[in-house]
Amino acid sequence: MKEREVIARLRRIATDPAARGLADDAALLGDLVLTHDTIAEGVHFLPDDPPASVGWKLVAVNLSDLAAKGAEPIAALLSLTIGDEDWDEAFLGGIEAACESFGLKLIGGDTIALPRGAPRVLGLTAIGKAGERTPSRAGGKPGDGLWIAGTLGDGAAGLRVLLADRTAAGVLVEHYRRPIPLLAIGRALAGQASAMMDVSDGLLLDLGRLCEASSCGAEVDLAALPLSRAFVAERGGDRHARLFAATGGDDYALLAALPAGFDPNFSLCLPPGTHIQRIGRLAEMPGIILSDAGGPVALPEHLGHEHDGV
Amino acid sequence: MKEREVIARLRRIATDPAARGLADDAALLGDLVLTHDTIAEGVHFLPDDPPASVGWKLVAVNLSDLAAKGAEPIAALLSLTIGDEDWDEAFLGGIEAACESFGLKLIGGDTIALPRGAPRVLGLTAIGKAGERTPSRAGGKPGDGLWIAGTLGDGAAGLRVLLADRTAAGVLVEHYRRPIPLLAIGRALAGQASAMMDVSDGLLLDLGRLCEASSCGAEVDLAALPLSRAFVAERGGDRHARLFAATGGDDYALLAALPAGFDPNFSLCLPPGTHIQRIGRLAEMPGIILSDAGGPVALPEHLGHEHDGV
Repeated sequence: MKEREVIARLRRIATDPAARGLADDAALLGDLVLTHDTIAEGVHFLPDDPPASVGWKLVAVNLSDLAAKGAEPIAALLSLTIGDEDWDEAFLGGIEAACESFGLKLIGGDTIALPRGAPRVLGLTAIGKAGERTPSRAGGKPGDGLWIAGTLGDGAAGLRVLLADRTAAGVLVEHYRRPIPLLAIGRALAGQASAMMDVSDGLLLDLGRLCEASSCGAEVDLAALPLSRAFVAERGGDRHARLFAATGGDDYALLAALPAGFDPNFSLCLPPGTHIQRIGRLAEMPGIILSDAGGPVALPEHLGHEHDGV
Repeated sequence: MKEREVIARLRRIATDPAARGLADDAALLGDLVLTHDTIAEGVHFLPDDPPASVGWKLVAVNLSDLAAKGAEPIAALLSLTIGDEDWDEAFLGGIEAACESFGLKLIGGDTIALPRGAPRVLGLTAIGKAGERTPSRAGGKPGDGLWIAGTLGDGAAGLRVLLADRTAAGVLVEHYRRPIPLLAIGRALAGQASAMMDVSDGLLLDLGRLCEASSCGAEVDLAALPLSRAFVAERGGDRHARLFAATGGDDYALLAALPAGFDPNFSLCLPPGTHIQRIGRLAEMPGIILSDAGGPVALPEHLGHEHDGV
């Protein structure tokens, strides 16, 4: 609730159209898409996560916001708290690897010292070139199909694996630590999506935000959620597992509202190997209606992680 | 030294021309000037500083970087750690006041929660429109005059006053808490300056950076430093006070290298009330040579605050 109040207060300041009412993942300034995400030790990453993976993730979560707007990464400014030399060196190695992988140029930023023992706080501002269209969260219409590019639940499952065994490794842990922003898919979908955002805090929470911004509701079929083989091997594929995947967060999948007639096989040139899956539709009536292969399912109490905002 | 190593490592990543070798206060991307500054509680501001002044200062220190590049503020992204409701509300009031005062639009950012008891870390990315010229730190030439717009030492004197009495008020405390970025003067000087930067970490330290980037040295006359009446009333105007003003930091004055023939009365339309003062010149020989009304003065051991970088 507190965070909502802060964001409401920020909205009263951020009245320029470029801010998109702070209801979006990114700002649109001329032909540039801008986003800033900050991550804190103990909140967004674990103190014993490999520092190179923290650097990678900081870049990836910002680029995921650009992906959701169909933008092409150009440049970034890094805000870095420095302290432990080895940690910082490895962290910057992760930043460098991600910048190289995704064609992002580091062009500036700031380094600061923190008081001893304070948790690290790391920020990145990513700047992208807008495509022909920059879908917001707000353009969804009742009747639009709801589609997911990527899979759900892998990151949250990886975190659970790690919390049980800090030395664990594997696909799910890798997904948690080194998510891949779906830049090419985002660019392909942006031309047709009525609304698009990345799923970072949990599908149901993020879908609620898309619905609120689009002034509509949604129907979601849990049976249709795209799950990876690794996820099903670890947590199964039953309703409990599907609810976990729908609320876990750390997905960095894309959620798009696409016109009813959208067919991924005919509608556009998706990159090879794209996983894109219809999970439901937008509806007139506010609120999210869940079902599982036809039968109704009550909405869980916790829809996702509320730690992030703006 | 550690910070230097981190920055050296960052330079190996930030090879794009827009990064200007990370030797500048800001990046130049097309016709946009971009800068990011982060401030931390206990490092850049005091825990009992009024939160509205912290918000103001966060905006002002970023705009001071734009001022030094002759850029006009356009938009900003805010990174905010949230916790105490009253503090956050007052802080945002300060952000709002500064944004309104300087024509800056808040267009996005991020809010995050920190672990309990962790110091606040607040960041701002400011985006400006470049003027006809965007002076870097690197263009200074031997023979250029060194000029200061604004006064030196007020912010550092204000901090000393506050550390002795946390309830103190007055011009110096106000300068420490609510610096004014010299945007109009910066725009006026940018057309002619060979090199320009803002003085934030101490004149001698920042001048050393300008010299390093410009591959030259400098001669500075302490007797010529522009001091405010409030500064002289508090700390006097002797050599000790002048060395304090030359190394204190938190000035947000502008340091410009201008061609030898530059005359502020004839050379350009400076805004009314501009304080601009010649304090020395750039020289061939590396290093800074200090004098005081003709007599040589040894360079002090501490040239300024090394907490910030990039």
